[in-house]
Amino acid sequence: MRCALLVSYDGTDFSGYQRQAQGERTVQEELERAAAEIFGAPVRVVASGRTDAGVHAAGQVCHLDCETTIPPERLFLCFNRLLPPDLRVLASAPAPEGFDASSSAKRKTYVYSAYLAESELPLVCRYAARLKRKPDLAAMKRAAELLEGEHDFAAFSSAGSSAKTSVRTVYRIEISSKTLNGGTMYEISVTGNGFLYNMVRILAGELFAVGYGKELGQTALALGCGERSLVAETMPPEGLRLERVDYGFPLFGERS
Amino acid sequence: MRCALLVSYDGTDFSGYQRQAQGERTVQEELERAAAEIFGAPVRVVASGRTDAGVHAAGQVCHLDCETTIPPERLFLCFNRLLPPDLRVLASAPAPEGFDASSSAKRKTYVYSAYLAESELPLVCRYAARLKRKPDLAAMKRAAELLEGEHDFAAFSSAGSSAKTSVRTVYRIEISSKTLNGGTMYEISVTGNGFLYNMVRILAGELFAVGYGKELGQTALALGCGERSLVAETMPPEGLRLERVDYGFPLFGERS
Repeated sequence: MRCALLVSYDGTDFSGYQRQAQGERTVQEELERAAAEIFGAPVRVVASGRTDAGVHAAGQVCHLDCETTIPPERLFLCFNRLLPPDLRVLASAPAPEGFDASSSAKRKTYVYSAYLAESELPLVCRYAARLKRKPDLAAMKRAAELLEGEHDFAAFSSAGSSAKTSVRTVYRIEISSKTLNGGTMYEISVTGNGFLYNMVRILAGELFAVGYGKELGQTALALGCGERSLVAETMPPEGLRLERVDYGFPLFGERS
Repeated sequence: MRCALLVSYDGTDFSGYQRQAQGERTVQEELERAAAEIFGAPVRVVASGRTDAGVHAAGQVCHLDCETTIPPERLFLCFNRLLPPDLRVLASAPAPEGFDASSSAKRKTYVYSAYLAESELPLVCRYAARLKRKPDLAAMKRAAELLEGEHDFAAFSSAGSSAKTSVRTVYRIEISSKTLNGGTMYEISVTGNGFLYNMVRILAGELFAVGYGKELGQTALALGCGERSLVAETMPPEGLRLERVDYGFPLFGERS
């Protein structure tokens, strides 16, 4: 039987989702360790996609295959008795015929958080990067409009991407700001049909660069010619979280 | 010269504000260690009040006396070069004549955060306690109204309080809820002229108890007779943060 898991983790102390060759603590390793204990046999836990070291997830989705008498809807309780506190399965459910957490995913939403303050904010810095200057939100929103849609995002990907094509569709980029005790928080929510390696962190970097005065034409040029060096640097991982993965139907009942 | 500091800390890895006899890591110890390095002499750093082990602060206020050529407004930068990442001085300023961070404080606001979800939420649980059941917000708001005002809060204090009187004025209790990815967050904001030992965590516990069905008359009875055993248990520390301290004038310019 194939089961789907809704998974959340604080990425601070993980070397990303994907199991590493040796000694690194990863989300996959912890999930598979718990699964092996629950099912009494090695089980592979496949995610909608990897997240990098230090990146968080509020709503990662995974699947696994198992033979068990445990009702799928209660499986998450078994996992949570075995997982470390920075990793939890929020819900579990039987997966429909042919479901694959990775290839069945229709849309993913990532949120990038960054804050502006005169000093680091200890209650904020675990889940947000710190900005050095105040960005122009209106300029950032114009850049976001330019980046929405189907494009070749080759310039917005780090070396090492194994994807066959660098064409992706970004359905929506929403940018908001709110006052913090001691500063301002900026959030960039990006929904797309898929993302290249480091793409959201690079998109966020480019949006802030435009917010600091980079000309929009430069962003358009990079999008057109696919040259990584024309685009801003990758933002740090702690500001990024995988917010949700959509499959076109409610996987976990009303939770999805 | 007396200087005021606006201080924030993630309380998770601190044994509270106040310096302990031996080996415990405290906020005061870290601040005084940095101050000794900056001024080249031992300096006492006095807070508006202690916070307990595990309790956070977004806007604690402290004072210290020093002889230095460093402009008071830039002192926070010196501290932040020496402090650990979970502790920062957000602003610094010269304190007016007669100012004392503790005895000059007119009002303090604490916020208690708690969430309801089917499992622990790794991205939330560092700064909020977890609830077991859904509370009735309307009942909680009625209890909050009862608790506002000047009362003898003897029943809402843990043993060990050294205060001369247990009469305090609670100016305002605000209760709100919002949807989380995976649950609901409840926030209780309490502003008063001062608080007894553990008072906000006990007040929060009592408000949730009423939200779970405890009769309001029981809360009123406890308030009247001062009997601790009639009141709910102390809520855990991770949900509490000292939000701000008011002195009746802007200590840190527009920041206050």
